[in-house]
Amino acid sequence: PFMGTTAKDTYETASRAALVGGTTTLIEMVCPGKDDDPWEAYQLWKGKAEGRSACDYGFHMGVTRWDDDTSGGAEASLRRVVGDGVTSLKVFLAYKGAFGVDDAELYRVCTLAKELGLVVTAHCENAELVASRQRKLVGEGKVGPEWHERSRPAAVEAEGVHHFCTFLEMTGAKGYIVHTSNRLAVEAARPFVERGVDVDLETVIPYLTLDETYAQRAGFEGAKYVMSPPIRGAEHRAFLWEALADGRVSTVATDHAPFDFVGQKDMGRPPEGDFTMIPNGIPSVQHRVTLLYTHGVNTEKLSLQRFVEVASTHAAKRFGMYPAKGTIAPGSDADLVVWDPEYRGTITQADNLMNTDYDGFEGFEMVGRPELVTVRGEVMVRGGEFVGELGHGRAVPRRIG
Amino acid sequence: PFMGTTAKDTYETASRAALVGGTTTLIEMVCPGKDDDPWEAYQLWKGKAEGRSACDYGFHMGVTRWDDDTSGGAEASLRRVVGDGVTSLKVFLAYKGAFGVDDAELYRVCTLAKELGLVVTAHCENAELVASRQRKLVGEGKVGPEWHERSRPAAVEAEGVHHFCTFLEMTGAKGYIVHTSNRLAVEAARPFVERGVDVDLETVIPYLTLDETYAQRAGFEGAKYVMSPPIRGAEHRAFLWEALADGRVSTVATDHAPFDFVGQKDMGRPPEGDFTMIPNGIPSVQHRVTLLYTHGVNTEKLSLQRFVEVASTHAAKRFGMYPAKGTIAPGSDADLVVWDPEYRGTITQADNLMNTDYDGFEGFEMVGRPELVTVRGEVMVRGGEFVGELGHGRAVPRRIG
Amino acid sequence: PFMGTTAKDTYETASRAALVGGTTTLIEMVCPGKDDDPWEAYQLWKGKAEGRSACDYGFHMGVTRWDDDTSGGAEASLRRVVGDGVTSLKVFLAYKGAFGVDDAELYRVCTLAKELGLVVTAHCENAELVASRQRKLVGEGKVGPEWHERSRPAAVEAEGVHHFCTFLEMTGAKGYIVHTSNRLAVEAARPFVERGVDVDLETVIPYLTLDETYAQRAGFEGAKYVMSPPIRGAEHRAFLWEALADGRVSTVATDHAPFDFVGQKDMGRPPEGDFTMIPNGIPSVQHRVTLLYTHGVNTEKLSLQRFVEVASTHAAKRFGMYPAKGTIAPGSDADLVVWDPEYRGTITQADNLMNTDYDGFEGFEMVGRPELVTVRGEVMVRGGEFVGELGHGRAVPRRIG
Amino acid sequence: PFMGTTAKDTYETASRAALVGGTTTLIEMVCPGKDDDPWEAYQLWKGKAEGRSACDYGFHMGVTRWDDDTSGGAEASLRRVVGDGVTSLKVFLAYKGAFGVDDAELYRVCTLAKELGLVVTAHCENAELVASRQRKLVGEGKVGPEWHERSRPAAVEAEGVHHFCTFLEMTGAKGYIVHTSNRLAVEAARPFVERGVDVDLETVIPYLTLDETYAQRAGFEGAKYVMSPPIRGAEHRAFLWEALADGRVSTVATDHAPFDFVGQKDMGRPPEGDFTMIPNGIPSVQHRVTLLYTHGVNTEKLSLQRFVEVASTHAAKRFGMYPAKGTIAPGSDADLVVWDPEYRGTITQADNLMNTDYDGFEGFEMVGRPELVTVRGEVMVRGGEFVGELGHGRAVPRRIG
Repeated sequence: PFMGTTAKDTYETASRAALVGGTTTLIEMVCPGKDDDPWEAYQLWKGKAEGRSACDYGFHMGVTRWDDDTSGGAEASLRRVVGDGVTSLKVFLAYKGAFGVDDAELYRVCTLAKELGLVVTAHCENAELVASRQRKLVGEGKVGPEWHERSRPAAVEAEGVHHFCTFLEMTGAKGYIVHTSNRLAVEAARPFVERGVDVDLETVIPYLTLDETYAQRAGFEGAKYVMSPPIRGAEHRAFLWEALADGRVSTVATDHAPFDFVGQKDMGRPPEGDFTMIPNGIPSVQHRVTLLYTHGVNTEKLSLQRFVEVASTHAAKRFGMYPAKGTIAPGSDADLVVWDPEYRGTITQADNLMNTDYDGFEGFEMVGRPELVTVRGEVMVRGGEFVGELGHGRAVPRRIG
Repeated sequence: PFMGTTAKDTYETASRAALVGGTTTLIEMVCPGKDDDPWEAYQLWKGKAEGRSACDYGFHMGVTRWDDDTSGGAEASLRRVVGDGVTSLKVFLAYKGAFGVDDAELYRVCTLAKELGLVVTAHCENAELVASRQRKLVGEGKVGPEWHERSRPAAVEAEGVHHFCTFLEMTGAKGYIVHTSNRLAVEAARPFVERGVDVDLETVIPYLTLDETYAQRAGFEGAKYVMSPPIRGAEHRAFLWEALADGRVSTVATDHAPFDFVGQKDMGRPPEGDFTMIPNGIPSVQHRVTLLYTHGVNTEKLSLQRFVEVASTHAAKRFGMYPAKGTIAPGSDADLVVWDPEYRGTITQADNLMNTDYDGFEGFEMVGRPELVTVRGEVMVRGGEFVGELGHGRAVPRRIG
Repeated sequence: PFMGTTAKDTYETASRAALVGGTTTLIEMVCPGKDDDPWEAYQLWKGKAEGRSACDYGFHMGVTRWDDDTSGGAEASLRRVVGDGVTSLKVFLAYKGAFGVDDAELYRVCTLAKELGLVVTAHCENAELVASRQRKLVGEGKVGPEWHERSRPAAVEAEGVHHFCTFLEMTGAKGYIVHTSNRLAVEAARPFVERGVDVDLETVIPYLTLDETYAQRAGFEGAKYVMSPPIRGAEHRAFLWEALADGRVSTVATDHAPFDFVGQKDMGRPPEGDFTMIPNGIPSVQHRVTLLYTHGVNTEKLSLQRFVEVASTHAAKRFGMYPAKGTIAPGSDADLVVWDPEYRGTITQADNLMNTDYDGFEGFEMVGRPELVTVRGEVMVRGGEFVGELGHGRAVPRRIG
Repeated sequence: PFMGTTAKDTYETASRAALVGGTTTLIEMVCPGKDDDPWEAYQLWKGKAEGRSACDYGFHMGVTRWDDDTSGGAEASLRRVVGDGVTSLKVFLAYKGAFGVDDAELYRVCTLAKELGLVVTAHCENAELVASRQRKLVGEGKVGPEWHERSRPAAVEAEGVHHFCTFLEMTGAKGYIVHTSNRLAVEAARPFVERGVDVDLETVIPYLTLDETYAQRAGFEGAKYVMSPPIRGAEHRAFLWEALADGRVSTVATDHAPFDFVGQKDMGRPPEGDFTMIPNGIPSVQHRVTLLYTHGVNTEKLSLQRFVEVASTHAAKRFGMYPAKGTIAPGSDADLVVWDPEYRGTITQADNLMNTDYDGFEGFEMVGRPELVTVRGEVMVRGGEFVGELGHGRAVPRRIG
């Protein structure tokens, strides 16, 4: 549930799309309301995966409130979730009034994470600056999706990164910054890394393959490309490839949040709507690995080895799944992707396994693709087609590192 | 009024000390309570200077609240203050619950400053991190003044700087960061300066001449050296001299906040008190210029020209007093300091013209001193002695630059 | 031949040691005298490998003279070497009067390399500064191996790097800096890389595992650790691991130059000798991969993927051997190293397959080792023992990239 | 004498131009031939100033050869020059075969300078790269003055700076880099400064006020703007102003080398000539201070204080003339420049006091000028006109610092 609607995928659809695209384990975020009990929310989310997912899965546990009230019952409930093998929390610095936490809450979350050895994952944008700029732009009649990027500039994200990293440094907690979109944000984290703060940066496949002109497409088409942080200019995209190659950025994820164009994205269509009402997200779980290979390895921006690290190994380690996941070794799960580097194809909505009425990467070329994919030894994909069994997936036991 | 008590100096004492020390114009901060009317607060502060001050003076207008209520009447009142020649505002990011502003207030202040061309001056420390660490340390029985620095580490100040600079960048306002104490804080501002954000950094004479060991002095003596941000380790002091020489830091001020040791500083004496109750500040208006010359020019860390810039000219320009102040030129005020570089002396409480029962620089050597000081042509100091007239000082008309 | 003596290994001994250590292809430097014909020198070197080497091999063609005389016949001869599949040249900025080239020669070499698409590899130390400091130290009676590092400080190497990179930039040639030993040298190359100069940095396993204290060992033991550039202090070693992880350093080689302690290294033993007479080099071809795994992957300084890149893939690409070498893929040579991460052992002279009377890594622990090694499908090592055939190795055809 | 001709000014003309322009002391370079005796050369140069110069003067002693032969008699002779109060040497890294020194010579010069406490000033460009590129361009028929900059790119100068700084670091000598023209050169010196090497950077007024388009002027007009290092693109000019403001560049000089357009500059006019035959230099001693004020202080790139430092004080200190020169203080020479900031004028050849047939700054506006100039208390300039006496100038006694 997000922005008054609900993302379209079920585990049946998403896990199939993931596997065909070469991803064998998903981590989803549990996102409870401010008044929800953590354990109950976790059970609710987990219940949607159990017996339905074709691939393996895990969860980041969202924390959306942490005041004196919650620190009683809710804290015990949250510790119970951790006891069930969830080794990462998720907080939003943005989305004030909805999921966002304030400084006092953030400090408590980081302190608990430090105590328990958890990784705090964070959406880093300054809430007030976003809200102020949205008001200003909408007030000036700038309401189309092309204004979305202007409402949350790179510097606003960099502020979130610097802010979050300071809380990590002051508490000693481990951190992970999700969906980093631009140079300023990456550079804001550097002094902390150099001082020994344990923080990783993630980027997502849309930032590496699209640019701000997509959200400027005419006829409200741009709404398909509205996500937060927004997709930036081409110079940021070029920078992210460099940062990915040299280790300043550690992982490539999706921020997969699938909404239909008709009936969902168009909630923000002017004149009734504005860009702040467009559900955020670009369906991309099916294309993450293939586009990373096509635009990274094939163009020599990434070595084959680095490709494996950023698409798989590092995340497995960071989130306590290694060496069961993230490596090919005796004793590890036989989650294998046999890659055909000779394959050539084009992305089309006809092949879209994600449950959305559009594919944002329509027309993009693919160089290479997963030919055969297994999960714990069972063949799930053959010749690029899903041939596995829904329900084969299971929750990955995770270790605190 | 600050931390439940009131600073000791009047304009009679402070202006005399300033002049003997080679400062011919003071800028004080008006610090209204959250419910006070700006114009009334300004009149109150100004009334304490008029007819009493021997040197000239001006004010930074403190803004401690800016919600929907205030933006009606209070805004009009604030604009009236600006109309009276006040070209700079002051906000606290620290001191949550007291003077501190939140992000929404900060955005409004910066937006107004941009509209009117004012400089926003800011005390930059993250309020929540200070509060959390104070609670933690006091809870662990770490209550002496030697713990003050640990309660507000360098990184907490750097966070404040980065945060404030982002708000300047997003609104286009001009900024000025008061009392910068450490390397991390200075470096946090650099990316903004390089992107063209118009922000200056100030440091103060205690950071350039003392270090953290002073606040660690036995027998609660350390309380004399408690100010915020705290005085840091010697490596930060060395860094600040470099940053002052090369322009990363623009001005040297005092953060003059004079409190007695007996009856004020000792409000924080354990076991009844703790370091959070020690009124913050080190009396230093008398020593700013002399110590800057002694520790800067005399040791060749600063050229004579740079000394004049950081002690006088740059601040005069930044705050709209130039060329009446800050330069020797036809048409400028004849505010002259004739310097005797041969003078040698030692700071002692016996010579303390500030109205406090101790001098934190007791025993410090002085190389050089003002021999003769004039304000608009009137001799105020001769042979190092105050010979002027109280009440000669007047408010400096200021220009928006 | 080097410094009046000759390195001890033959291809029979060196190739066996390389294979047992997990290296399946060697690149040696052809080092002609200033008056030798390039093609003849190349034939001489190649002849020592043909029919004798167990592993595959290639050559960097040394250029030690390039004046107007040589640019006639010698140039044609050199082009003939290139025509035989040698895609890299080697120059020395150090060793003035012996192998070293002057600026005019360096310019010609780079210009030719640009024309032909070759990589210029370079030993970067300023010849005059080394010579001057050697004279000074020896003149002061500082003659033991512990003075070797002082005779060629980090800054002297950084000068060589900056100098060489400027020549690359001015000619457009591709470069590769061999055996980079320290932070200053790596940082000297950065501005060029950032401006788009195509230059790679190599480090060698001794710099990653030893430090300057080894050359300070008593009783002339230090001579075993004399190489150039010298092994630096521990802070440089730590830096090189970081630079290797983030891509500032691209490859790990050996600078394998094996000399006996008795009869060779002791040519520099005082009082008759001094450190300038100690043949430079540390036998290490057997330990490169094992120590890189032990000190890199096992300590989490390098990921497994990055380990493969820096030990194999990147060099294969840079020197035109990829994809025959450097990857596991259909069509590539079946040069496989099956790694046993559970193996634990200790390096001893008893196991030394290199033809030297000492092993500088005596007593070093090994974590993991090659269990089975193949060259083009033939098993050469099984259970850590050489079981292959001498003479199986052949020259690798190389492509200009 | 330079490039087969002789600069046009005498001390009579140059000292008058300097004074009218606000410069009260000149430092000229003594430039002996490789076989000249230093003391004799020094006497020759000094003789041209004595009894003729209106302003005070001093010399940098050029060292153009330093091999085993010279280190006998020439060294004694050079020490005699130093004994006469010359505290700075000058070397050329460029101009191979003419004035340039090689690495062995450079090392000896720096070693002597360290011993005697002298400052080594250096022209930093790699000789071989300049020569190679000149050959290449001329060979391609690129012979006009517009090709001069391409023949000695910014990176070639940066190489010289890095090279020279390494020699300073290795010998402990103090250095001063004359006429720094670009960002790369300034940045090449930074690591050394940060490691504590005592080196200053000078720029000259043409680099701060002109750009590469001047040398591209049609009809061989560009020859008027040929100097070495060449005048760069506008981005380097902007950078130099920043570096001057923040202290990375310490002084502003002229590299005053006045040649007539007709009869001298045109020695390089195609088709007979080429750009390598154009005598290098731009007459500018008359305009240094005025243009620095106009383009620096007047545009707020420099404060008035920094202007005084870079135009006067710092050089006086560096070259051992302070506090006689470079400051206004009791006991100092009364070398005063009374500045009229209200003056407005235009540079024209009609007002050119330098002995050349053109003024490269023709048409440039002047904001402010020296109204009255004194040398040791004697009025030399009044109302912008020279009213002094030739022969009043004398050699400034210099101290080794």
